[in-house]
Amino acid sequence: MPKIVDHATRREEIAEALWRVVRRDGIRAASVRTVAAEAGWSAGAVRYYFPDQEGLLSFAMDLVSRRVTDRIAAIEATGSLPAIVLRYLDEVLPLDAERRAEFDIWLAFLAQAQAESGAGALHDHVDSVHGQLRDLCASLVKGLADAGLLKPGLDQAREVELLHAVLDGLALHAAIQPERTTPDRVRELMRRHLDSVIAADS
Amino acid sequence: MPKIVDHATRREEIAEALWRVVRRDGIRAASVRTVAAEAGWSAGAVRYYFPDQEGLLSFAMDLVSRRVTDRIAAIEATGSLPAIVLRYLDEVLPLDAERRAEFDIWLAFLAQAQAESGAGALHDHVDSVHGQLRDLCASLVKGLADAGLLKPGLDQAREVELLHAVLDGLALHAAIQPERTTPDRVRELMRRHLDSVIAADS
Repeated sequence: MPKIVDHATRREEIAEALWRVVRRDGIRAASVRTVAAEAGWSAGAVRYYFPDQEGLLSFAMDLVSRRVTDRIAAIEATGSLPAIVLRYLDEVLPLDAERRAEFDIWLAFLAQAQAESGAGALHDHVDSVHGQLRDLCASLVKGLADAGLLKPGLDQAREVELLHAVLDGLALHAAIQPERTTPDRVRELMRRHLDSVIAADS
Repeated sequence: MPKIVDHATRREEIAEALWRVVRRDGIRAASVRTVAAEAGWSAGAVRYYFPDQEGLLSFAMDLVSRRVTDRIAAIEATGSLPAIVLRYLDEVLPLDAERRAEFDIWLAFLAQAQAESGAGALHDHVDSVHGQLRDLCASLVKGLADAGLLKPGLDQAREVELLHAVLDGLALHAAIQPERTTPDRVRELMRRHLDSVIAADS
């Protein structure tokens, strides 16, 4: 009887092993070999799904996108609009070990794409993840504008890009110096930025 | 007669060759071998100064720090204070090919440090460059506060960190999508952030 292989389940198992390696030893330690060892598989079995480290890294990046999307979908839109906006932003900031692992993957992925001059699959992938976060910022700014909470005189498109820049800047700083740029500090700075965007009498 | 070797000049020559390689082919292409080829030296001669790629990358990072420091020192503090502040920020944003090469080196350096879990020489170096930029932001915010230009009610320490985050976020976006986050757009967004910090009647 031929072995029945559930490819989706196998990929999930690899994903989980990969995640444990990245959280414990950093993204640089994630190779076909170390992920196979972590999963208790042969390197050949992992290589069947991901022939090389770039494939593995792309898969890790997909995983990050999926996790972020799932968390965002699970947010309950209750309370004041600014509070809801802050809750969304919280989910994409590296404020706990899980989200720091996600951010480190993103940073490794980005650095690799930047290091390769010219276009390519890696660049397309970076554009797509970058666009995903900008889309989130766009819908949050639009939500504020539609509710009449955006400070008069502000340009909506510009505010989307500035919010996105603050988000990525804070994420970067939380990753570089977590003991200084603590989760509480990040939330405080995020709130200060939002205050500069939200109409004073709202 | 023994050969007289001017080590400082040799290091400068390696620096220039390294820079050309990074600008043309990206940081990933910079190895002892490629830099030696670019300089017209043997790999052994380069290795005498930089035994491995990490040493070369550290040297490149020092070079970036030095270039930024030199440019900042050369800024003439004429015109209105907000205009001067913008001129300083301009010098640390990747708005031309030279400064994009600098930023790519920083990103590669940072990703490598993040990928290595725990402390180490790379981490110390990242902390130092990160601190250098924060110090610049601190002196700009202090300059605004001392001139009475900081919006009342704003906390100076918080504004330093937020300015630093905006700066790094915009730099990241200019590097990721230079065709979208153009130099003009970056300056416009930077100015919009400064407007949220500067007292309305100044």
